[in-house]
Amino acid sequence: MDLLNQHVSVRKFSDRMITPELLNRLFVAGARASTTGNMQLYSVVVTRDQAMREQLAPLHFNQPVARTAPVLLTFCADFNRFVKWCEVSGASPGYDNFHSFLTAAIDALLMAQNVCIAAENAGLGICYLGTTTYNAREIIALMKLPQLVVPITTVAVGWPAEQPEQQDRLPVASVIHNEVYHDYSAEEVLAYYSFKEQLESSRKFVAENGKASLAQVFTDVRYKKADNEFFSGKFLEVLKEQGFLK
Amino acid sequence: MDLLNQHVSVRKFSDRMITPELLNRLFVAGARASTTGNMQLYSVVVTRDQAMREQLAPLHFNQPVARTAPVLLTFCADFNRFVKWCEVSGASPGYDNFHSFLTAAIDALLMAQNVCIAAENAGLGICYLGTTTYNAREIIALMKLPQLVVPITTVAVGWPAEQPEQQDRLPVASVIHNEVYHDYSAEEVLAYYSFKEQLESSRKFVAENGKASLAQVFTDVRYKKADNEFFSGKFLEVLKEQGFLK
Repeated sequence: MDLLNQHVSVRKFSDRMITPELLNRLFVAGARASTTGNMQLYSVVVTRDQAMREQLAPLHFNQPVARTAPVLLTFCADFNRFVKWCEVSGASPGYDNFHSFLTAAIDALLMAQNVCIAAENAGLGICYLGTTTYNAREIIALMKLPQLVVPITTVAVGWPAEQPEQQDRLPVASVIHNEVYHDYSAEEVLAYYSFKEQLESSRKFVAENGKASLAQVFTDVRYKKADNEFFSGKFLEVLKEQGFLK
Repeated sequence: MDLLNQHVSVRKFSDRMITPELLNRLFVAGARASTTGNMQLYSVVVTRDQAMREQLAPLHFNQPVARTAPVLLTFCADFNRFVKWCEVSGASPGYDNFHSFLTAAIDALLMAQNVCIAAENAGLGICYLGTTTYNAREIIALMKLPQLVVPITTVAVGWPAEQPEQQDRLPVASVIHNEVYHDYSAEEVLAYYSFKEQLESSRKFVAENGKASLAQVFTDVRYKKADNEFFSGKFLEVLKEQGFLK
């Protein structure tokens, strides 16, 4: 539990290689994660090659960590392998639908988190790239992902060259509900977020962006309505292109 | 890493209670999971109450574990709290779209897996219920989930009263791709799945269901095309009802 409680995202890595043996151990531990009906509806694409990393980085909006990490792991919802098995086994698969996509995405994310915890347990540093769903189409093309395979998240992994401070979290009571959802009054929301708003880093963020509140940095700069809507449409098209919205 | 490698799903639990303090520690560790932009786009609804468990069990198709577990944790993608914070902070949120749902679902799943690992580390047993997305609408009604909150997965937790054998997994090489996706030939698929097909439990499964192959048990009995399509439509309607497909 200490390991989980010490988690930080690492964005600077040393030159030290991750051996294939270690990477393999991470995947073995990853594949132990719970999976729907033991179907293991995921694949992981490992990016080490310098030329591939150069092509992948702009698809992650050139976040520095997408270039500096020695290894990028792209976790994909994958019904292709399972469907191929059905087809060679005289079975008629019916997994070209949204429900099946969601099932596979859940599988892929539980595996991803297991891999991250195994990595941290081995002394490695990790950082999730939340940008995978933005440019899923381009990642699909680059990695030659077939029908019924869609990338969901990417993890940068390497030996850490920094020890960042932990980020704040909301009071745990704010995300837990007993028996039924207790909706938030304005006062409760303000109380829960006040610690975050008063952080030196938050104040700096607000000032740098010339905004009136921390929330405005999120809505006006980081996660904008127009972008969210654009990428919603794009991702739903990708699901259709990959055969998950027939 | 040993802890991850020893994972089994536990479906029988002793009468021993989980103390609120221990549950709280699991949530603290859970909330340490990576989260998009540190937004923590999730909520967890804790079901302990007997009457609530009785109402929840049929929504999980009366899987025995949904009744026998002392605690059920329903992990939800939640943009409601964040949006409420935006609104009281003079910010204009734009999170009523599919992209935002997916982002929140990813957050919720990484947190869920952290909670599971923390639970196992404390000696508890866990079992995921993959049925949450089937009856999301009814779970929303029962737990009074507001707009922009959608349940994604449920975890049964308790002190184990059994030590099940580990389930098989595919050879790890079958789920890993270097640089680009290596699509599977019929021979490769058969080789990867042969171990699973030859298991005593698989053969029994095939015989009991009167099928010609293990894959047919999946396509014809466990995860049928008509069901998948029905629940695809239903879940997309739920996303619309909850304000995530505007």
